[in-house]
Amino acid sequence: MQTSTSTAHPLDEALALAPGDAPGHFTGQTTQAYWNMVGPYGGLTAATMLAAVLRHPDVLGEPVALTVNFAAAVTEGPFTVEATPVRTNRSTQHWVVSVLQSPAEGGAPQVTTTATVLMAERRETWSAADTPMPQVPPPADCEPAPPIFPVQWLRRYEMRPVRGMLPQEWDGSERDSLTQLWMRDAPARALDFPALAALADVFFPRVWRRRALRVPAGTVSMTVYFHAGSEMLARTGSGYLLGQARAQEFRNGFFDQAAQLWSESGELLATTHQIVYYKE
Amino acid sequence: MQTSTSTAHPLDEALALAPGDAPGHFTGQTTQAYWNMVGPYGGLTAATMLAAVLRHPDVLGEPVALTVNFAAAVTEGPFTVEATPVRTNRSTQHWVVSVLQSPAEGGAPQVTTTATVLMAERRETWSAADTPMPQVPPPADCEPAPPIFPVQWLRRYEMRPVRGMLPQEWDGSERDSLTQLWMRDAPARALDFPALAALADVFFPRVWRRRALRVPAGTVSMTVYFHAGSEMLARTGSGYLLGQARAQEFRNGFFDQAAQLWSESGELLATTHQIVYYKE
Repeated sequence: MQTSTSTAHPLDEALALAPGDAPGHFTGQTTQAYWNMVGPYGGLTAATMLAAVLRHPDVLGEPVALTVNFAAAVTEGPFTVEATPVRTNRSTQHWVVSVLQSPAEGGAPQVTTTATVLMAERRETWSAADTPMPQVPPPADCEPAPPIFPVQWLRRYEMRPVRGMLPQEWDGSERDSLTQLWMRDAPARALDFPALAALADVFFPRVWRRRALRVPAGTVSMTVYFHAGSEMLARTGSGYLLGQARAQEFRNGFFDQAAQLWSESGELLATTHQIVYYKE
Repeated sequence: MQTSTSTAHPLDEALALAPGDAPGHFTGQTTQAYWNMVGPYGGLTAATMLAAVLRHPDVLGEPVALTVNFAAAVTEGPFTVEATPVRTNRSTQHWVVSVLQSPAEGGAPQVTTTATVLMAERRETWSAADTPMPQVPPPADCEPAPPIFPVQWLRRYEMRPVRGMLPQEWDGSERDSLTQLWMRDAPARALDFPALAALADVFFPRVWRRRALRVPAGTVSMTVYFHAGSEMLARTGSGYLLGQARAQEFRNGFFDQAAQLWSESGELLATTHQIVYYKE
């Protein structure tokens, strides 16, 4: 039995990592708070891998790119994160990160998740926002939606749909794949890079909306490009993000998702892509 | 002096890899045919890393996703590619790949490039194309453009601009970042997965067009999602691809590029994203 009197945010509890047995190795523990159907919410795993890099003593700058490959489900219990800076340049740093778990039946630890991370010391330059936030009603005018199915991680996010939520009937009638929603951590929490990485994975599988069929589907690889630096994150604070996601192609078992995340004031915090397995 | 009477396509010559000193290790050699300003064309490096996976005896299925991180310039001479299958499931396989080179001044080999690759045995499923090819004139109606500057790799591609090429004057006047062009290997060559990966990196930096300023810029990370299986590649053959690229955000030293590659008949072969460093 695990008891806690902590008042830490569930995301901070889930991202807790202890130093491991070698430099850049950390040990963590899955939490029920972000449990999905057969493992932790993928966005949480992405956030955990980024958090390991951010806690490494040799880390340089701020995250610019994160790619996470979900090779196998993380199972309940302890896991190891290995974060290795493979190349450090003057203002950029490249990381390779793995999550490993020992099989229940014993034997050598196996890789469940791989990632690469690009860190950089960013400087102020000419900048331009070329993807304006869609004109949508403010969060207060959009009703919060209850979790679309009973898994824990959906309770860790406040979601206020704008358009393109799940079909009302699973009748196989085809439609577009576009979803827009306001979202933030629940309870509200100041945005940081791991939280933003986790939010990039919030969207339900595009194929469910496109087909009005709830076929088995799961993200296999996800990339997040962080346009926000820490100052833009601080400006966003615990406010809502507008998320927009659509697919470009569904082809023989895999579809892609292209998404954007803006702050409520319209700053593009991140763009993100996934390739997602689907059945049938 | 290197002489050759081979009639192999320059891409096949550039992708030549010899077995290395351990399983999954290959040795290659940079070629002048794809030389960029300070190293090989990034698309060629991406193609080389994918080729190493495809030549590994344990490879499963066909490529679905490829992420390449350009950590440092590859220098002229030999290099090693290390391709490791870190997780093999029933129908998917996850790889971690590195390019290493020994510094000219001696010492341990250093990582120049990292990559992750997702392979999968794809099955025929319900599919949908949700990103129609833009209506553009056919390749024969678009004049081939000469290389925009004198580097070797640009001579390895036939490019027929449709719209959004480089500004006529570098006068700093802002415009959109959209480019469309017909393209294929030069000389023409039947499309395969490495060639498609290389073509995904063909677009000049979006910031040059957006700003009409030729600031220093270079791709730092690139992801390619392959929607085409080998049958679709065979249908494409040595025909033209329509490439379309645009940026979503330019922010403090990095911009992203989202791009699509269609076959001439309008099949979406791949979608691809980059995060690109730029100065000033």
